[in-house]
Amino acid sequence: MPRHERVSLSVIRRLPRYYRFLGDLVKNGVTRISSRELSLRMGLTASQIRQDLNCFGGFGQQGYGYNTSLLREKIGAILGIDSGNPTIIIGAGNIGRAIALNMDFSNMGFNLIGIFDISKEIIGTEIRGLEILDIAELESFCEENHPRVAVLTLPREAAPQVVERLVKLGIEGFWNFSHYDFSVKYPNVVIENVHLGDSLMTLSYLVKNNDKKENS
Amino acid sequence: MPRHERVSLSVIRRLPRYYRFLGDLVKNGVTRISSRELSLRMGLTASQIRQDLNCFGGFGQQGYGYNTSLLREKIGAILGIDSGNPTIIIGAGNIGRAIALNMDFSNMGFNLIGIFDISKEIIGTEIRGLEILDIAELESFCEENHPRVAVLTLPREAAPQVVERLVKLGIEGFWNFSHYDFSVKYPNVVIENVHLGDSLMTLSYLVKNNDKKENS
Repeated sequence: MPRHERVSLSVIRRLPRYYRFLGDLVKNGVTRISSRELSLRMGLTASQIRQDLNCFGGFGQQGYGYNTSLLREKIGAILGIDSGNPTIIIGAGNIGRAIALNMDFSNMGFNLIGIFDISKEIIGTEIRGLEILDIAELESFCEENHPRVAVLTLPREAAPQVVERLVKLGIEGFWNFSHYDFSVKYPNVVIENVHLGDSLMTLSYLVKNNDKKENS
Repeated sequence: MPRHERVSLSVIRRLPRYYRFLGDLVKNGVTRISSRELSLRMGLTASQIRQDLNCFGGFGQQGYGYNTSLLREKIGAILGIDSGNPTIIIGAGNIGRAIALNMDFSNMGFNLIGIFDISKEIIGTEIRGLEILDIAELESFCEENHPRVAVLTLPREAAPQVVERLVKLGIEGFWNFSHYDFSVKYPNVVIENVHLGDSLMTLSYLVKNNDKKENS
């Protein structure tokens, strides 16, 4: 596999989209596709697609295009979807519960092994076959099971103290829904922030400034 | 207010971030900030920030910087956070329920007025004081209440048929968690897609390729 240490974050962020689109094509029986066709479907330029995939060594054949299932497989390998990173969820409220129940962790690089909360009312109940554990047991659980990734679905006020514990316990990656910004404080961990509110406010702007209706 | 029809989507997407950061500053008693200070906190360049805000007419004063609460207020107005767009949620499963319970709709430009589902088991129960309605009542509800925005938290397979009904009923904006891609089919509506799986796979890549630990 080619070295790709200097791939920009914006290219990386497009890889899951390629992976999704290729999955749809494979499902619909499309076995090969040109970069031009793929670009029309994805709303990118063909040259952008070629550039993106060249970061990882190409994969296309002149005059043939891309083999959809092969390309999908290779992008999946680059994304590490088979990594099975041991993962814990911190916070079993509405968002934590929905994430635990709806996300296809095992096909996206993760293996969900624990869910923690602070509320005595839900500790001991189950989500997706996993017992919700007391956050007080975090240290003993991590020493035994060595999770590598944590999903933060706890309130922002509670996040700083828990993140400090998690970093000490060796967590390397965070899927962060808490709105607590800790990238400067802990430069050695990787953090993927999810700000649903930013997305909602973007929609507010788009609805307010939608002049597509008048033009149609 | 200056015209800003040609503002690029990447600038628009940064506005909610400015809004959040400024909210934190105001909360912490910071009354003014230079573009340089703001840039350090946000991980952008100072010139990027000046450029972004100039799209909307500026707001800074040479040698003084930005008045944090005034700038926040103006960005909020640009985003339309007071719009109160009448909004319905389609799909009261785990994600729909979490969104209904956790999102601060009223402070982000929306007014949640209805929640719909297809499952007889949950129709008639309440979320956040709203009764879950039968999707069969969608037409009569919309004719009476004129929602402008729909949150799609229904399964992808069910989305095409429901989206067709919603567009006919005059829905102009969609917050789309369904993974159904309908931007080409309905070019006159605005769509904000949320793909949590893309974010999770990006994290998978980042964890796999994290060499920060070795360098530290």
